[in-house]
Amino acid sequence: MPLPQSPLAPPSFPDLPEIKGASFAAVAAGVKYQGRTDVMLAKLDPGSVVAGVFTRSLTRSSNVLDCQAKISLPSDEGAAIIVNSGNSNAFTGKAGDGSVSAICAAVAAATGLPETRVFTSSTGVIGERLPHDRIISKVGDLVQALDETGMEMAAQAIMTTDTFAKGSCAEVVIGDQSVRIAGFAKGSGMIAPDMATMLVYVFTDAKIAQADLQALVSTANNTTFNCITVDSDTSTSDTLLMAATGASGVDVTGNAAFAEALHGVFLDLAHQVVRDGEGATKFVAVHVSGAASDADARTHAMAIANSPLVKTAIAGEDPNWGRVVMAIGKSGAAADRDLLSIRFGDVLVAENGWVADSYTEDSGAALMKKPEIDIRVDIGLGQGSATVWTCDLTHQYIAINADYRS
Amino acid sequence: MPLPQSPLAPPSFPDLPEIKGASFAAVAAGVKYQGRTDVMLAKLDPGSVVAGVFTRSLTRSSNVLDCQAKISLPSDEGAAIIVNSGNSNAFTGKAGDGSVSAICAAVAAATGLPETRVFTSSTGVIGERLPHDRIISKVGDLVQALDETGMEMAAQAIMTTDTFAKGSCAEVVIGDQSVRIAGFAKGSGMIAPDMATMLVYVFTDAKIAQADLQALVSTANNTTFNCITVDSDTSTSDTLLMAATGASGVDVTGNAAFAEALHGVFLDLAHQVVRDGEGATKFVAVHVSGAASDADARTHAMAIANSPLVKTAIAGEDPNWGRVVMAIGKSGAAADRDLLSIRFGDVLVAENGWVADSYTEDSGAALMKKPEIDIRVDIGLGQGSATVWTCDLTHQYIAINADYRS
Repeated sequence: MPLPQSPLAPPSFPDLPEIKGASFAAVAAGVKYQGRTDVMLAKLDPGSVVAGVFTRSLTRSSNVLDCQAKISLPSDEGAAIIVNSGNSNAFTGKAGDGSVSAICAAVAAATGLPETRVFTSSTGVIGERLPHDRIISKVGDLVQALDETGMEMAAQAIMTTDTFAKGSCAEVVIGDQSVRIAGFAKGSGMIAPDMATMLVYVFTDAKIAQADLQALVSTANNTTFNCITVDSDTSTSDTLLMAATGASGVDVTGNAAFAEALHGVFLDLAHQVVRDGEGATKFVAVHVSGAASDADARTHAMAIANSPLVKTAIAGEDPNWGRVVMAIGKSGAAADRDLLSIRFGDVLVAENGWVADSYTEDSGAALMKKPEIDIRVDIGLGQGSATVWTCDLTHQYIAINADYRS
Repeated sequence: MPLPQSPLAPPSFPDLPEIKGASFAAVAAGVKYQGRTDVMLAKLDPGSVVAGVFTRSLTRSSNVLDCQAKISLPSDEGAAIIVNSGNSNAFTGKAGDGSVSAICAAVAAATGLPETRVFTSSTGVIGERLPHDRIISKVGDLVQALDETGMEMAAQAIMTTDTFAKGSCAEVVIGDQSVRIAGFAKGSGMIAPDMATMLVYVFTDAKIAQADLQALVSTANNTTFNCITVDSDTSTSDTLLMAATGASGVDVTGNAAFAEALHGVFLDLAHQVVRDGEGATKFVAVHVSGAASDADARTHAMAIANSPLVKTAIAGEDPNWGRVVMAIGKSGAAADRDLLSIRFGDVLVAENGWVADSYTEDSGAALMKKPEIDIRVDIGLGQGSATVWTCDLTHQYIAINADYRS
């Protein structure tokens, strides 16, 4: 009984380019779901470098801990990434560590890679033992099926409560050569990243050192995946891995156009995660300016974006700016009631501590009917600004989460 | 179209004792609601002292700011408290300040009190101008109707989305004399107090200095109203006022039994607010022990109690302890995955970083069907502990809040 596709989904999965040096495969291993693929493998050729960011949860999964231990080890031998859906292998104690080791050993044996170059992720229910034998028995099939055109299949295999597969790509021309970036993500609920979000895999054929790639990834992550929230709940498994195969031969070290393209792919994927937020019917951007600092602006923006009362008002298409005021007041960051101004889209709703003279309920109500809503708050105190993205809180979120596990 | 009464409501409003020196009245002023009372007045005889705690929201209402300015002024002339429902007079700029002044002046004129001894609260929609003339035109009627038996009527007049009026009382015998405590509260949504919660009024005929009463109130508040959450949203109007008339002639300064009885009344009222949480079908106590500090324990407990995924799982009667682990991991307080243990009621669910050997899904599922659920977490690190109370997150919360204002 699949969930209906989010009304905020893009029309189709993008036409992702092949990334030289990277190949993909997916298989149905029956980890939990039946009748669909649930394990994907990505293989990176020798010379590839891998960077990543991970959840800061103190109850993070064995997979995340293992990735973190390996991510900055030097290697010229290539790498593999294997991901299953249906079971997160989180809070599974020493057995969880054993599952990760067993999967890494199997992938290493089948690919000739050292175990230190095999990265794993698991996503799905927390606290149930991962049936890793089902995955291991399919590793041979996965390696056989590896193909440079397999990225969309890989994106489908890692979905859980997602209602659409999420992909994005960019091409950057540097001199007379070009490099490509392509990646995919999954995520729908338990989205309030605190370092990275859910599962995200991005690939490029650019040439770049691991440390430089890691710096680019961390910087881009801060204003993309770390600025989205569906429900304020931070996953135990959030992982973003990016691999550069170098196969284009184009060195992108210090190249601003590449950094910008990378940021664009991250932002597109992050927005797609929000658009597939559990039960979402509205895509909401919260822009805060005039705060005492950027950190304060982010605190205000997140308080608005995570407020159940703001989110239910949006679901009800109610321009209830009073709840925005409430969220600012409770956020803990500096604010002065009488200096605030609030806009919904281009409509000035409130200023000087009260509803704007020019505001009419009709103009506010008309705006709220749109599927994409901008909330703009000026705190009136300083130069700090931030933007975060979220979705509304609907009956469907309750329906999905009141019986997801059962 | 009144909301159906919460399934967690007590069987009836308690039989509150009269408090000598305190009288009450309620009236229908048509502030917003029709066909019901919406303004209440409490009058305290000369010699009464008043203490209070208030929201720390930076966008708090004019009424709260005015109460805070007056609360510790000395006076032997008595006091009055006037409260309206239907409009919170919050984020109404200078006009809101004017409304408070006008109401205070009218009550002062009608009662012979100085304006500095008139306290006001307003609760309801944020950001709409308070039609204070409607309230002022009824002040004469209110003063005429004052009666020592009027507390239940007063409790009814301040309800907004509440589905039942909330009252509590206690009697303390000190030597061969006794003193009484009685009070009432309102609150249902926008409940995540950060100092006090919503509107709470408590009265006693005990004799005590204002500073001593204030200390008792602040202490009791910390482990009662400050430990409940319905939806993590902190009101702009939260106010708790307590008045001691001294009419019993019994001095309770330093009396432990009185402090305990006061705490009991606060806790009862706080629990009733949670039991009337918007859409609530489960009353949930979250007990955290073994944390590195009491502050850490509270952080963990609030992260669990405010998690939309934990709250929807409870609504779905799903013993989804994995989401409890997630909430602990994201809370920011110290934790070690492999030292945690989790109980639902008396059932050991997880320990040593994994599901307990003795746990069965049937035992967990049976527990979750009860209307009252205890979640007990031992962090395994230290001696810190805390308890907070919350409710589940249901379709009805969405229904109430997606169109409350419209």
